[in-house]
Amino acid sequence: MHLLPPRRLASWFAAALLVACAQAWPASADEGMWPFNGLPTEALAQRHGVRLTPEWLERLQQSSVRFNSGGSGSFVSADGLVLTNHHVGADSLQKLSDATHDYFRNGFAAATRADELKCPDLELNVLLSIEDVTARVEAAVTPGMSAADAFAARRAVMATIEQESLAVSGLRSDVVTLYQGGAYHLYRSKKYTDVRLVFAPEQQIAFFGGDADNFEFPRFDLDICFFRAYEEGKPARVPHHLPWAVRPVAAGDLVFVSGHPGHTDRAATLAELTSMRDIRIPADLQQLNRLESLLAAYAAEGPEENRQAADDLFGVRNGRKSRLGMQAGLLDPAVIARRKAAEERIRSDIDATLAGKQSPYDRIAAAQRELDGIAMRLRLLEGATAFNSRFFGHARTILRSAAERPRPNGERLREYRDSNRASLELELFSAEPLYDAYETAKLADSLTHLAATLGGDDPLVQQVLAGLSPRERAAELVRRTTLGHRGAAAPGEAADTRRDLYDGGQSAVAASQDPMLALARLVDEESRRLRTIAEAAQEVKRQAHAEITRARFAREGAAMYPDATFTLRLAWGTVKAYEESGRTIEPITTFAGLFARATAKRDTPPFDLPPRWQAERRVLEQDAAFMATPFNFASTADIIGGNSGSPVVNRAGELVGVIFDGNIQSLVLGIAYDDAQARAVSVDAAGIRAALARVYRADSLLAELGLAGGGQQ
Amino acid sequence: MHLLPPRRLASWFAAALLVACAQAWPASADEGMWPFNGLPTEALAQRHGVRLTPEWLERLQQSSVRFNSGGSGSFVSADGLVLTNHHVGADSLQKLSDATHDYFRNGFAAATRADELKCPDLELNVLLSIEDVTARVEAAVTPGMSAADAFAARRAVMATIEQESLAVSGLRSDVVTLYQGGAYHLYRSKKYTDVRLVFAPEQQIAFFGGDADNFEFPRFDLDICFFRAYEEGKPARVPHHLPWAVRPVAAGDLVFVSGHPGHTDRAATLAELTSMRDIRIPADLQQLNRLESLLAAYAAEGPEENRQAADDLFGVRNGRKSRLGMQAGLLDPAVIARRKAAEERIRSDIDATLAGKQSPYDRIAAAQRELDGIAMRLRLLEGATAFNSRFFGHARTILRSAAERPRPNGERLREYRDSNRASLELELFSAEPLYDAYETAKLADSLTHLAATLGGDDPLVQQVLAGLSPRERAAELVRRTTLGHRGAAAPGEAADTRRDLYDGGQSAVAASQDPMLALARLVDEESRRLRTIAEAAQEVKRQAHAEITRARFAREGAAMYPDATFTLRLAWGTVKAYEESGRTIEPITTFAGLFARATAKRDTPPFDLPPRWQAERRVLEQDAAFMATPFNFASTADIIGGNSGSPVVNRAGELVGVIFDGNIQSLVLGIAYDDAQARAVSVDAAGIRAALARVYRADSLLAELGLAGGGQQ
Repeated sequence: MHLLPPRRLASWFAAALLVACAQAWPASADEGMWPFNGLPTEALAQRHGVRLTPEWLERLQQSSVRFNSGGSGSFVSADGLVLTNHHVGADSLQKLSDATHDYFRNGFAAATRADELKCPDLELNVLLSIEDVTARVEAAVTPGMSAADAFAARRAVMATIEQESLAVSGLRSDVVTLYQGGAYHLYRSKKYTDVRLVFAPEQQIAFFGGDADNFEFPRFDLDICFFRAYEEGKPARVPHHLPWAVRPVAAGDLVFVSGHPGHTDRAATLAELTSMRDIRIPADLQQLNRLESLLAAYAAEGPEENRQAADDLFGVRNGRKSRLGMQAGLLDPAVIARRKAAEERIRSDIDATLAGKQSPYDRIAAAQRELDGIAMRLRLLEGATAFNSRFFGHARTILRSAAERPRPNGERLREYRDSNRASLELELFSAEPLYDAYETAKLADSLTHLAATLGGDDPLVQQVLAGLSPRERAAELVRRTTLGHRGAAAPGEAADTRRDLYDGGQSAVAASQDPMLALARLVDEESRRLRTIAEAAQEVKRQAHAEITRARFAREGAAMYPDATFTLRLAWGTVKAYEESGRTIEPITTFAGLFARATAKRDTPPFDLPPRWQAERRVLEQDAAFMATPFNFASTADIIGGNSGSPVVNRAGELVGVIFDGNIQSLVLGIAYDDAQARAVSVDAAGIRAALARVYRADSLLAELGLAGGGQQ
Repeated sequence: MHLLPPRRLASWFAAALLVACAQAWPASADEGMWPFNGLPTEALAQRHGVRLTPEWLERLQQSSVRFNSGGSGSFVSADGLVLTNHHVGADSLQKLSDATHDYFRNGFAAATRADELKCPDLELNVLLSIEDVTARVEAAVTPGMSAADAFAARRAVMATIEQESLAVSGLRSDVVTLYQGGAYHLYRSKKYTDVRLVFAPEQQIAFFGGDADNFEFPRFDLDICFFRAYEEGKPARVPHHLPWAVRPVAAGDLVFVSGHPGHTDRAATLAELTSMRDIRIPADLQQLNRLESLLAAYAAEGPEENRQAADDLFGVRNGRKSRLGMQAGLLDPAVIARRKAAEERIRSDIDATLAGKQSPYDRIAAAQRELDGIAMRLRLLEGATAFNSRFFGHARTILRSAAERPRPNGERLREYRDSNRASLELELFSAEPLYDAYETAKLADSLTHLAATLGGDDPLVQQVLAGLSPRERAAELVRRTTLGHRGAAAPGEAADTRRDLYDGGQSAVAASQDPMLALARLVDEESRRLRTIAEAAQEVKRQAHAEITRARFAREGAAMYPDATFTLRLAWGTVKAYEESGRTIEPITTFAGLFARATAKRDTPPFDLPPRWQAERRVLEQDAAFMATPFNFASTADIIGGNSGSPVVNRAGELVGVIFDGNIQSLVLGIAYDDAQARAVSVDAAGIRAALARVYRADSLLAELGLAGGGQQ
């Protein structure tokens, strides 16, 4: 349980990597989302004059928290207090709310620890160790195996490694595929599943400027939320946490970001990027645009409907805007030209050594074409975009659990492996309230989408609709299913039978008359068939990518970091201005800027302040020190979605901010790093402190953060 | 200039029709959107005991007004005062507004006639006569002609008829294709192009309940707007107008609707319906969903951006909801089964007489497949969804005018025929303000859509983008074009060169460096090529539909009305309750209902009342007579989009309401009439009167309407 170089250096790759890390540096100065076991510490020391000690790194790593709902955070007190973003906490805020309590919109503050609210299904992970298991994984795949067999063998050995690790350590154990298949590392994490809500501001200030300002800078958002990890019913005593910085950041400061970037495609080939540009992102955007229309219309039906759809609507708009940014990058000839030139350089090296074998680039292109050919059906069925209801998700989990559990651990669909069972059950048995009208609206829309995409006469469509229109069918399915917890606003008569069916296994599932379970069964064979095709194609790509990674490494001799995988990474950068349309954008905003922007937009939504802020505004505006307090700041750190909530620390390892966004120019970071204009955007720790003190008077929270007397700046 | 049976009865069809109209009745009692020259007057007399006199019909016909921007209206005073919907007037309200005056949102009331505001490009039409020209049109098409030649011959003879009529009468002259090609009638209309805004309420009350309540009932909307037609700078003295009814409608009353239903597909074959279900409507919805996301995001940037996008956003949401309703109908197995059974009955008759010829149903199906094959490219290029900017529309009109005008009238693209020239110029030279940021956002989105649809590597995409990303290219095109009038909020430096280029013709266009004109030129050849293919396929369908129409008529022996064509039609129905989910929905709502709904929705948008209504609310609520005044009502009249603003009259021909919507069940009316649940929704004339008197104190307007002392109910 300490900070670790890799424990086993069996693979060619891990060994090479270690050497490289000590020597070289990627093209752009602050580029990289580095695993904690592969940091270019020497080069960092040379460039920024900072030598990260094992103690410094251990504290940062073990203070970093992954939100399995999608996001990052950090311990900020010895009693398990966790700081993250409002929009990361939103999933829990939404699930904790009901028709009479809207914590997502209005915020929440626990008066005492006894008032902290337990989240229905939130799991936090803290990374404790990383072990290189590449050799063992690669050994399971022998030359001449078909892609399908290779995939199965790889899945089996990964499940075995994870299960062995869980048995030995009691820790959450995940074998993570790095470098698209170039390396396999076993990540062991401590898990917290009793997590409680401590404090959230109003969404109006957390997301001031709304969709319009999202992914923009300058920015003025108090996008924060506090939770607390519990163990055995008591606040967790955590060995490490981050101290609050005394001095706020200034332009030019070096800052470090420790978080969980979700996914990047920097090693994707041109064939993969083209597919992303012409197939995946357009399909994503169609889906998101449709959902945005649907959810906005549902939300407009009244305040309660608005509340039910609020977090989903935020997520859809956020996803839409980020996809548009990626699409813009992929349609920028300059971006593609750079990628093309880089690919051609490496490809010529590889192709010179093929000796009659097919180029890995061509194998990737062929596999990608196969994936593209099934993409729409795969997305509809296995991606379940045709069955957009939480009830359907539960039905599928129950159906598949019953089918998979009797099989050997290594032969199951990956999410049903033993080592993942606890996390899967946490989600399946969530007490999250579901609303019949809302679930019906989503399901009717998605069934309509299924019919519109495959055609109304498609046999599968006809089976799914069972002689009804999509709206009628959706209403019937939701009315009759018993696989979820009905929210107060939609008091269905149906009992909740999830646990009985799950525990009852195959015989109980076979005997069930639940219509949602029947629907999941109806599409399961075709859905699994498509998934099997996709997994084999992914295996082809994985093997080809491993070859390319090897060649790149041989040619570039440079330190390489793996594409993001929603695992802990360290990034760094400088608090720095940038130029846009001939203007200089200063990197630090203040509360004065917040009030000025509200005024400039006539205080109309989404530029209106919450009542609490309005009430204090006149007093605050007369306090020059408060008005000048840093609120948000921009830095060149290399981040992407999943980094939301990541702690930002200074050289001393003190908390100076919390990542919550990137600017619009950062949206191409998924395919290529850039520090000319792309910026990570953080809430400033000084701004958080001032808001807690002056607007929320959150004295006990400030005391726990070691900021008692925080009212004085 | 009088009300007219058809002047020439040369075609088999017109003759048959007249006989039928006197005898028979369609399946559903109040079904039908009847041309004024083909009314089933006898059957109407038998069923409803009402015999419409020529005088009654003449007054209603010549009081009915078509808004060429899309909608209907009626003269309500001898001084050319026109009543329509707020959402029909919205196009003009938007174009009259600027950063400091938002008439669309805040409403407008002219203090005197001198204060009435001239609309930039609004054209009103009043139908004066109809003449059957079927024989002449059909005679131009000879057996054995190719579809392309037949189309050209038909287009030529239609242009000639129109031009001759214009020369003789000085009236707007349009040959209208009825029964999908079964008949051709020449419509002559008086045109008003000096139209001024007189009164509009706030959008909040015109569209109370917003998108959520749109297409719903019960309903509470003051969706009205008053304009005035001018001639030679003075209020037009019109020979006919509708008197305001003294007594409001009651449940069970028979009402008549005279308006301009835009388009229906009741005679579409199954092949066409399937294409609509699987190709056209999904593509429409993708387009609308994308635009809704785009416009909502633009509108969220601030109050001024919100104002610029407001009417477009309304239109997009309205279009989305209506398409969803049609889609739901097409995906309803019961609806399709009825259509299938009906088609099979007629088809068996037709197929028995084919004598080796291909069935018209098969010819339609083949032509539809051809249309489906080019649908996406046709939509992108000729439909210009890839170039979503008013600047592009002007560029194309200028480019094509220059190319078409030198050709003989009958050989031009139809919209460039001489008889349409004045209307085309009214639109081209509109003083509508255009905003660079808004046009850039729409164009960037649509160029991105082009690239996403055809693929980033498509040669046409690459030519269109000219080495730039879609966003850069859109910004460049808008910045540099000079083909429009810049709004105050986007003061481009570019002069407005529309008229010079248009007047200058081919040489001026060839010499122009305008980039938007160059873009229009770049895609013109391919766009025209696709259009030619589509026109030939439409000709095939037209000929086949004429055969089917003949057979249907022979078999059913029933009166048949043509599908809607945005020409004047008469419909009627009963003010009538209906059942929904086991509840009875009463057909008439009141102001009491309005206030109750606002309260139930906590007065949150879109259920909030405008300030003027809030200010009066307390007083009004204490006035039992006001509270009980009818506000909106539902009837079984057969309407569709385009009927918005249609006058609703009682047996005496007095105005009792204004159509503004249909309920959600009415959205399938495009493919089949239903009077079980489908309802047309009107603003009640009594409600309008009360609102003008009690909330707006519009005394001079009331006096002009003959409602002086309207404050007393």
